[in-house]
Amino acid sequence: MKSQTLLSELIDAFCCLPGVGRKSAQRMAYYLLDKNRQGGLVLSSSLQQAMQEIGNCNRCRDYTESDVCHICLNERRDETILCVVESPSDVVAIESTANFNGQFFVLLGQLSPLDGIGPDEIGMPLLAQRLTEGLIKEVIVATSSTIEGEATAHYIAQMTQQNITQSIQVTRLAQGVPVGGELEYLDQSTLALSLANRKTI
Amino acid sequence: MKSQTLLSELIDAFCCLPGVGRKSAQRMAYYLLDKNRQGGLVLSSSLQQAMQEIGNCNRCRDYTESDVCHICLNERRDETILCVVESPSDVVAIESTANFNGQFFVLLGQLSPLDGIGPDEIGMPLLAQRLTEGLIKEVIVATSSTIEGEATAHYIAQMTQQNITQSIQVTRLAQGVPVGGELEYLDQSTLALSLANRKTI
Repeated sequence: MKSQTLLSELIDAFCCLPGVGRKSAQRMAYYLLDKNRQGGLVLSSSLQQAMQEIGNCNRCRDYTESDVCHICLNERRDETILCVVESPSDVVAIESTANFNGQFFVLLGQLSPLDGIGPDEIGMPLLAQRLTEGLIKEVIVATSSTIEGEATAHYIAQMTQQNITQSIQVTRLAQGVPVGGELEYLDQSTLALSLANRKTI
Repeated sequence: MKSQTLLSELIDAFCCLPGVGRKSAQRMAYYLLDKNRQGGLVLSSSLQQAMQEIGNCNRCRDYTESDVCHICLNERRDETILCVVESPSDVVAIESTANFNGQFFVLLGQLSPLDGIGPDEIGMPLLAQRLTEGLIKEVIVATSSTIEGEATAHYIAQMTQQNITQSIQVTRLAQGVPVGGELEYLDQSTLALSLANRKTI
């Protein structure tokens, strides 16, 4: 009976991954056993190390296993522009555009009072402290375009204007027609926004 | 720079799984870090144990961490019927039908002389020894319906008839229209086979 246990334990464990059901989990387990035990062992040790050692940057709250992450430490990045995002994967998305050379601040969440997530839970004190350092001239609020994301953006804008003495510009990502998007399939709200914010060409 | 390393090592490691590209690997890594570090640790230790401890059953070559697997040890299974399959996942597929109560033999491959896979590589000596024990009355050859699978089936049938003195029936899985299949979309060969092997109702 023991054999079934180790293998079925592994299949159960794979099911914790996003987008992996029982069938894919089974396929993964058999694939590694059949063809790539070495890869399985590498994944195992890499997982253990990552889960235990990756924490958050003291400065921007992005994932890192050091005290301060490599973006915050990078002296060639522009310290006057700060991009505020909701999660570490948003940092990856913005970095992949290669169009931003400022620094980041990761909220690790959105304002959501009903779920008990207030300003303190999303690192607002740390952000406020960062803003008072006096280096930052612009805050780009790159939160989601959802109700919670908008509320968070609004909160950050207010906080910046009320509490910080020097003038800091607060901006928000542009909204409109996505590149390659066809008007026919665009939702009304986005289309209305892109009409209202039209630009001279 | 070290932070990028642990996280990107983990993403690289996830890419070794079947059906997981860089984007899904990234999603898995961030998901576990964000929401389920405990699950990640469980997966890590389960993976390590499985990769190191799961070997093959001495009797049927299925995966097991014991010497003999739980199917071979189960005394309530019919020892007179032996189902020969190509891989451990075929055992799972047949077990899931709940229509077979015999025992298994896993080839761990198909005959493929061009790739240097001959009878010895797919455990034929062990299978022959099993057949000479005298208990088995029927061998169900459940190899794939591919050229290599058919060649393997043919080899097993010949081996059984030539070398084994007592009479053993060798059978092959039925071929035809799959349940729920529409004739319109069925390939010619399968349709021709299902015509040739038609049954009285």
